[in-house]
Amino acid sequence: MPIYTDLINSLPETVPFVGPETDERARGRSFAARLGANENVFGPSPFAIQAMAQAANGVWRYGDPENFDIRHALADHLHIDYNTLVVGEGIDGLLGYLTRLLVEPGVKVVTSLGAYPTFNYHVAGFGGEIITVPFIDDHEDPVALIAKAAEVGARMVYIANPDNPMGTVHSADVIQRMIDTVPDGCLLVLDEAYLEFAPEGTAPPLDTDNPNVIRMRTFSKAYGMAGARIGYAIGAPELIKNFDKVRNHFGVNRIAQAGALAALKDQRYLHEVVSLVAQGRARIGQIAGDQGLETIASATNFVAIDCGQDAGFAKQVLTHLQDNGIFVRMPFATPQNRCIRVSAGSKSDLDLLELYLPLALEAADV
Amino acid sequence: MPIYTDLINSLPETVPFVGPETDERARGRSFAARLGANENVFGPSPFAIQAMAQAANGVWRYGDPENFDIRHALADHLHIDYNTLVVGEGIDGLLGYLTRLLVEPGVKVVTSLGAYPTFNYHVAGFGGEIITVPFIDDHEDPVALIAKAAEVGARMVYIANPDNPMGTVHSADVIQRMIDTVPDGCLLVLDEAYLEFAPEGTAPPLDTDNPNVIRMRTFSKAYGMAGARIGYAIGAPELIKNFDKVRNHFGVNRIAQAGALAALKDQRYLHEVVSLVAQGRARIGQIAGDQGLETIASATNFVAIDCGQDAGFAKQVLTHLQDNGIFVRMPFATPQNRCIRVSAGSKSDLDLLELYLPLALEAADV
Repeated sequence: MPIYTDLINSLPETVPFVGPETDERARGRSFAARLGANENVFGPSPFAIQAMAQAANGVWRYGDPENFDIRHALADHLHIDYNTLVVGEGIDGLLGYLTRLLVEPGVKVVTSLGAYPTFNYHVAGFGGEIITVPFIDDHEDPVALIAKAAEVGARMVYIANPDNPMGTVHSADVIQRMIDTVPDGCLLVLDEAYLEFAPEGTAPPLDTDNPNVIRMRTFSKAYGMAGARIGYAIGAPELIKNFDKVRNHFGVNRIAQAGALAALKDQRYLHEVVSLVAQGRARIGQIAGDQGLETIASATNFVAIDCGQDAGFAKQVLTHLQDNGIFVRMPFATPQNRCIRVSAGSKSDLDLLELYLPLALEAADV
Repeated sequence: MPIYTDLINSLPETVPFVGPETDERARGRSFAARLGANENVFGPSPFAIQAMAQAANGVWRYGDPENFDIRHALADHLHIDYNTLVVGEGIDGLLGYLTRLLVEPGVKVVTSLGAYPTFNYHVAGFGGEIITVPFIDDHEDPVALIAKAAEVGARMVYIANPDNPMGTVHSADVIQRMIDTVPDGCLLVLDEAYLEFAPEGTAPPLDTDNPNVIRMRTFSKAYGMAGARIGYAIGAPELIKNFDKVRNHFGVNRIAQAGALAALKDQRYLHEVVSLVAQGRARIGQIAGDQGLETIASATNFVAIDCGQDAGFAKQVLTHLQDNGIFVRMPFATPQNRCIRVSAGSKSDLDLLELYLPLALEAADV
């Protein structure tokens, strides 16, 4: 038998998320509305789709391991230096590499209770200890996160702004104070996956001279390319260079590289999508409101609907929706798990939600 | 400043391979023939290209984290159980995960001197110690590899069959003896990336009850999808299940999943490509022979041309070829680095080789 490391032997066999396809196979039919994974149903720019379709012909070539073209384009777009950007296999992949750089057994990492499970998966997977602080009023708590990081001597403190799974947001000022107060020897991991959906003024200025913060962004959300697996991180050059010690250099799909480049160039389409998503959010609020339910104000492409009771009730609502072909998810932690989380879908997606939410609430009420 | 792990601080900033695009940018022009990265210039099945182009539309969805469809198809194709297969981001990605399962500081790993650098990169990256045995007569040495693994108490012993960078092959009997004699507590990593190019009878039977061997295969080579980043490993269910503790569950590109499924179904095209590659190998042999050079008999999609002198001479030949638009690589270790390594390219690719090899040899001779 192979001899695993002690760390591997100590890890549970949990996975961060079950995919909707797994549910579909178990149920024997497809979901009619796929609104559970914070995917962007409006998809990528037609130019990006075209670029990817064309790139399929050239897929016999490995992708450029330096990701030069897309890094160059991002550097121009963001007015930062090329060497402050690393491109990887989505934020999930980059969080894994980052964790590997900093975390080993004995290292502490601070995040919010109920924040991104895949980050916790990586930290546990490298032997780190996750220490959490609660959400306050459905927001992550920047002051408490920083205080806890200082208290325990954390090497990383994680926040998503806007947040997942609640969709709430802090202003640039609040996040800038976090950046300014991050303890020595601690890296602030600022996950901005949903930034493009948020109001102007959500992101503090990029300061790539600051070695204590790394910002994670992606083509999976507003750019509509979740299945392409391409994201990027912005940080000080030394930190970025260290990714070269651990990353899978040829790991980014060549078709994804071509698609991301085309998607980035089509900012007009991005703005259209952001507008469609805002309409979808408003409609989810209206659908929930018609049932007497409140929604959490969201700066993302999803909305947390407060089902008004406990997690057991929310779970019943979720199950009834899924039984009727609507894939949704719900937060993992109390008290956020009184909610279900619904992506800002297409009109037909939300027509289904409008039809089935009242029935799900009625069924759950029994 | 962030605090890196001691292991990370100890790692050099080398990368396993420089991509051809990096050379192209440095030279200011593209290579006319891309024959250095063991890519398959004949590309994937037209059905796979079509499947990928169509999948671009649906790339807003994450890929199925279980890779169910392609694992199911592979299980049928190979007559093995679904739970003996793990799909990942190419063999590179899978080797990284496997190494993470088994390797920590103090662990020894045996491979051949001059074998796959990316495997060594992973082993070093997790703190393992690489111990090498030499090639014999341009072949990896199965008996010496097993003996060395037993001697040093290695947790992994790696062999590629057919081999990279020389292209040589051992028969199934020889590899089966390796499998039968792998020491207790050691895992045999059998990299079969180039298997489809090799003669019938190269692969020993799949035995997924054996916990001491893992076999790595890919859609990057014979299936022509290097840029898609999708490969698979075959092993005992417990070993395969452990990948779930560390892998990036949503890491495989959805377009790659669709392409691989279509590529696997088109075995007729695969056979055509294998035949074209064999013709290309023969022609490389003829082009080299016309210059009085020998080639190493190859069971892959590339040919090592023995330039007949030392590494310095081979490097000059390589440089002259690259200066004339032909991207090739050469082995890293002595004495294999007396050779240059050339992919079995298209007719026009090899026309260029035929034109420039004599000139490169002449220039190097000075």
